[in-house]
Amino acid sequence: MIRVAVLGAGRIGQIHAANVAANPLAKLVAVVDPIAAAAQSLAGRLGAESATDAEATIRRGDVDAVVIGTPSDTHAHLMLVAARAGKAVLCEKPVDNDLAKADEAVAELKKLDARVMMAFNRRFDPSNIELRRAIDAGDIGEVRQVIISSRDPGLPPRDYVAHSGGIFRDMAIHDFDMARFLLGEEPVEVYAKASRVVNPALMEEFDDYDTLMVIMQTASGKQCHINCCREASYGYDQRFEILGSKGMLMNDNLRPSTVRRYNATETEALPPLLNFFLQRYTDAYRNELDAFLKALDAGTAMPTSPSDGRQALRLAEAAIESVKTGRSVRV
Amino acid sequence: MIRVAVLGAGRIGQIHAANVAANPLAKLVAVVDPIAAAAQSLAGRLGAESATDAEATIRRGDVDAVVIGTPSDTHAHLMLVAARAGKAVLCEKPVDNDLAKADEAVAELKKLDARVMMAFNRRFDPSNIELRRAIDAGDIGEVRQVIISSRDPGLPPRDYVAHSGGIFRDMAIHDFDMARFLLGEEPVEVYAKASRVVNPALMEEFDDYDTLMVIMQTASGKQCHINCCREASYGYDQRFEILGSKGMLMNDNLRPSTVRRYNATETEALPPLLNFFLQRYTDAYRNELDAFLKALDAGTAMPTSPSDGRQALRLAEAAIESVKTGRSVRV
Amino acid sequence: MIRVAVLGAGRIGQIHAANVAANPLAKLVAVVDPIAAAAQSLAGRLGAESATDAEATIRRGDVDAVVIGTPSDTHAHLMLVAARAGKAVLCEKPVDNDLAKADEAVAELKKLDARVMMAFNRRFDPSNIELRRAIDAGDIGEVRQVIISSRDPGLPPRDYVAHSGGIFRDMAIHDFDMARFLLGEEPVEVYAKASRVVNPALMEEFDDYDTLMVIMQTASGKQCHINCCREASYGYDQRFEILGSKGMLMNDNLRPSTVRRYNATETEALPPLLNFFLQRYTDAYRNELDAFLKALDAGTAMPTSPSDGRQALRLAEAAIESVKTGRSVRV
Amino acid sequence: MIRVAVLGAGRIGQIHAANVAANPLAKLVAVVDPIAAAAQSLAGRLGAESATDAEATIRRGDVDAVVIGTPSDTHAHLMLVAARAGKAVLCEKPVDNDLAKADEAVAELKKLDARVMMAFNRRFDPSNIELRRAIDAGDIGEVRQVIISSRDPGLPPRDYVAHSGGIFRDMAIHDFDMARFLLGEEPVEVYAKASRVVNPALMEEFDDYDTLMVIMQTASGKQCHINCCREASYGYDQRFEILGSKGMLMNDNLRPSTVRRYNATETEALPPLLNFFLQRYTDAYRNELDAFLKALDAGTAMPTSPSDGRQALRLAEAAIESVKTGRSVRV
Repeated sequence: MIRVAVLGAGRIGQIHAANVAANPLAKLVAVVDPIAAAAQSLAGRLGAESATDAEATIRRGDVDAVVIGTPSDTHAHLMLVAARAGKAVLCEKPVDNDLAKADEAVAELKKLDARVMMAFNRRFDPSNIELRRAIDAGDIGEVRQVIISSRDPGLPPRDYVAHSGGIFRDMAIHDFDMARFLLGEEPVEVYAKASRVVNPALMEEFDDYDTLMVIMQTASGKQCHINCCREASYGYDQRFEILGSKGMLMNDNLRPSTVRRYNATETEALPPLLNFFLQRYTDAYRNELDAFLKALDAGTAMPTSPSDGRQALRLAEAAIESVKTGRSVRV
Repeated sequence: MIRVAVLGAGRIGQIHAANVAANPLAKLVAVVDPIAAAAQSLAGRLGAESATDAEATIRRGDVDAVVIGTPSDTHAHLMLVAARAGKAVLCEKPVDNDLAKADEAVAELKKLDARVMMAFNRRFDPSNIELRRAIDAGDIGEVRQVIISSRDPGLPPRDYVAHSGGIFRDMAIHDFDMARFLLGEEPVEVYAKASRVVNPALMEEFDDYDTLMVIMQTASGKQCHINCCREASYGYDQRFEILGSKGMLMNDNLRPSTVRRYNATETEALPPLLNFFLQRYTDAYRNELDAFLKALDAGTAMPTSPSDGRQALRLAEAAIESVKTGRSVRV
Repeated sequence: MIRVAVLGAGRIGQIHAANVAANPLAKLVAVVDPIAAAAQSLAGRLGAESATDAEATIRRGDVDAVVIGTPSDTHAHLMLVAARAGKAVLCEKPVDNDLAKADEAVAELKKLDARVMMAFNRRFDPSNIELRRAIDAGDIGEVRQVIISSRDPGLPPRDYVAHSGGIFRDMAIHDFDMARFLLGEEPVEVYAKASRVVNPALMEEFDDYDTLMVIMQTASGKQCHINCCREASYGYDQRFEILGSKGMLMNDNLRPSTVRRYNATETEALPPLLNFFLQRYTDAYRNELDAFLKALDAGTAMPTSPSDGRQALRLAEAAIESVKTGRSVRV
Repeated sequence: MIRVAVLGAGRIGQIHAANVAANPLAKLVAVVDPIAAAAQSLAGRLGAESATDAEATIRRGDVDAVVIGTPSDTHAHLMLVAARAGKAVLCEKPVDNDLAKADEAVAELKKLDARVMMAFNRRFDPSNIELRRAIDAGDIGEVRQVIISSRDPGLPPRDYVAHSGGIFRDMAIHDFDMARFLLGEEPVEVYAKASRVVNPALMEEFDDYDTLMVIMQTASGKQCHINCCREASYGYDQRFEILGSKGMLMNDNLRPSTVRRYNATETEALPPLLNFFLQRYTDAYRNELDAFLKALDAGTAMPTSPSDGRQALRLAEAAIESVKTGRSVRV
């Protein structure tokens, strides 16, 4: 039984804590949040202890592993505290929104030979697992092009935009990770073009963008396109298309039901997409935690690493540079 | 070059005449209709002669084959005239709406060893051809159940209902033929239940029904269900589902475009179905005529026979009897 | 907090027990099974007590409600024991496989004014809930025809066939219930035709069938077709199609992923269907239990009743009679 | 009746000649090809005269309009001959593969106030017409992103590659035109990245590419992505996705039938796509000619112009420059 503390009782912490509590390999020991009431409420519901001091909890003798769901700028520090204390870590992205700091943390974690997994939840979605499995099985031959469409249901609130780190670091970073996951090779060149068509005034205020397109290419000539938009009237949209030498694979989004409607103005109409990422990726979050626990239990390699987190951030930085220069950027 | 006269310049005659004119194996010699203006207009457009006397036209020396698209009660007579004159025939269903008369005509045509094909257009729809091909190729193993859904876009006008011969003989007869086509075995037992839910007053006036369900079974235990309704708000609907021991096949309807619509209330919404049978079965009518001409040209067996027309009618009669008695009827 | 005992630690009892344990409205008090080891194993995993005496457990003062997942022939008795002890009941179908005994139990439960819900899980599938909601909202106008396709992935083992009560009582009974659920009106006439095409020898041995078709009609003329087969190579298949005066609704089956495959021989190919009913109806079982608990908590009417169980069985009996007589049967 | 001569009896000329012959607004006067036998064979089949001298035929008094389906390097010259003779023109793309020559021709045609339509067949595909109609109707609000996937079924023969002008001018040019058609605004910036993954040796030999990705942006910030590949194992693939502020539209490809296959390894499997562009765009070619004839008949503006041809070529040239420089190119 792996004894786990969850750091952060916000919406992502709640997901992880409930998954820890329900997983037969784990025991939820404690939930930590600087807001004591939040920690107590979540811990109480799941039969765990609550605390406000993350570092003290990490060092508890009855804690084997921690799940980090705290604000982005604490990730690197908490991972290092845990690694130094010999604890395993599942940490939400990013390593850090600053590439230099992320690099430092990744290097240090490597030196410590730490057991750390970065939480790229989309890799653990059942359909995305199947995409990777089918590619590995040779179902479509050699991968040639990957097309990623990624759209949020609506603009986040002003306050979120102010501190998000921008659309490339906050939103597209998931797509950069999926690009690496699906290409099976590192992109060596990145071009990006960004635009303000959803809410130009808000975007200009924070020097951010709401709409973007990216092209990346690997050394062997595989290509990847990403398109993102902060608003899609029909719901939270994440699609992947992989063209290979022998075939093509596509996933589809999830909907609340499979009911199709026919009437005088339409046929085959399905409901809008699941609108919220926590609902959309319920299975993915559960699978992600399970993969973390199984790797710990079996002593096998972590499915994702801080280095993966760093690489996604590096691609995001290259994309930002490309937007500024109008040139493709070598990575 | 097969020299063809088309009898009847109504909507079905217009389809056949245009297909004859465009087919490289045939030459359209004449169009016949008791309404001279109708015959002239159609013939003029297609560079053929017009006439008002069907029998005289059939006997012309420069006519090798006739396509019969005249009213139902003239079919048997005109087929016999043509057969006796040694002309090949493509005749619209039914042989006759009266089973005894149909039987007589079928027997006589057999005696004459006539080259007659019954025009069951649906068998020549590209998707239905593919259904049969896949069954014959063993793709789904042994056929076990066939489910046929067949719905008109809307009730025909009062006048048509008055003379249609009833929903079983007029509408479901196509489905009885498709059942035989897809089962690959003769049904030996028929049960039917009919209902009046679209326009009960009109249906009662003519002792007809607007909605029906049928179950048939073959000697070896294969089953077929047919459901029909005179009204479907979303268009002209004809679907076939064939369950076999190793798989299942389904066709889909045709739509004016492939465009899918996503918005705040729906995703994957396609346009309504093609609404009119002439438009829906454009390819089927062309393929049907082509199959007729090719069989003539090659001297091979006709793809469908008057006996097929008789069998479909026999099943319709059995269904009507079943509705009256509440029992299944042996055929 | 509703204190619940689960009777039966077989595969259905395991589902219910886990759902009780995870539901915030309930506390799992005990798991009962005559095989002590089975009860202990399940109870231990979920932090509940185990027992082997169902009646004694029902009567415990700290048990408010029981979930009955025991063999069919114990359902009526255990429901009555619970009802007399003033306990609420969620009971798997059937009330009893014998209609007379079922009638007796239903009458007695009514007299006792018992809080009993019959577990027709399919009514609680998210897509089926949506079908009913859309009908109630008037989205498709008046219901005219319901088509139900229901296929098991494969024949049950010989031993199961021997004691199942036959395909109508064991398998089609779910479809009879769904027919009532979707028609929104009682069928008054039933016709059925059954066949042996999957394993004729086995079916003859037990005077059972592996393939069937049913037509039912309500007093107002609404029609329903059911087709069942004990074997479908592509997985566990349950589809509903509802034709109304203003539109049509269809559900679809669930698959393990949404990945579509394109290659030289096919496009849009999805994986086979989820193959096992427990997996297919995971959400339905959870929703079902939740609806039971919420009705108890709120003191509102049970979503389904023993009378629903009795009606489904009555339709199955009528279908069996129809198969024997070749006539439709009034109910 | 518009009297038409078709120049070129190759595969595209054959399509146009047959469509002219079948169109009620037109009369096919002559078919011209330097290979007399080719002209004779096609003309003979369609009841027209044949000739080998294009210019003489253009100048015939009984020719009102010409369709140009000759090699690319003759287009500009023949358009000018026809324009100077006062004849209307439907000309296959490109105006010329050399941008300077194309510019010159476009300017001259403008000066002559010539009635010239460029044959961008994809604009006339029924689903693409519907895409444009739905955008114009405001169904999806403001267009924000257009994603174009465009793949040939297989590499053209070596000889074709040698003279095609390269993948951007030969293949992607259709996509550049569709981008303009769907964006409804001119792109002002083009970035492209090209790759050799299908047949690197062949591509290097001719300094060409077999795989590419493009990003374009308009002045108002609308974005367009194009991906092309010379090989798709599943058939000729052309898909358009348009994200707007209120919704999204997608087309689908065409298949030879609508039959879906279910078995132990897959469900919902459709056949591969129509494999050849003449077959895929049958309706589009017919609609295109019809639009040309209707505009002539009604004296209204041509649906597409030489200037459209020039603009598509300009975008292709910009893309080629971008590939060479690694920078986005302003147009």
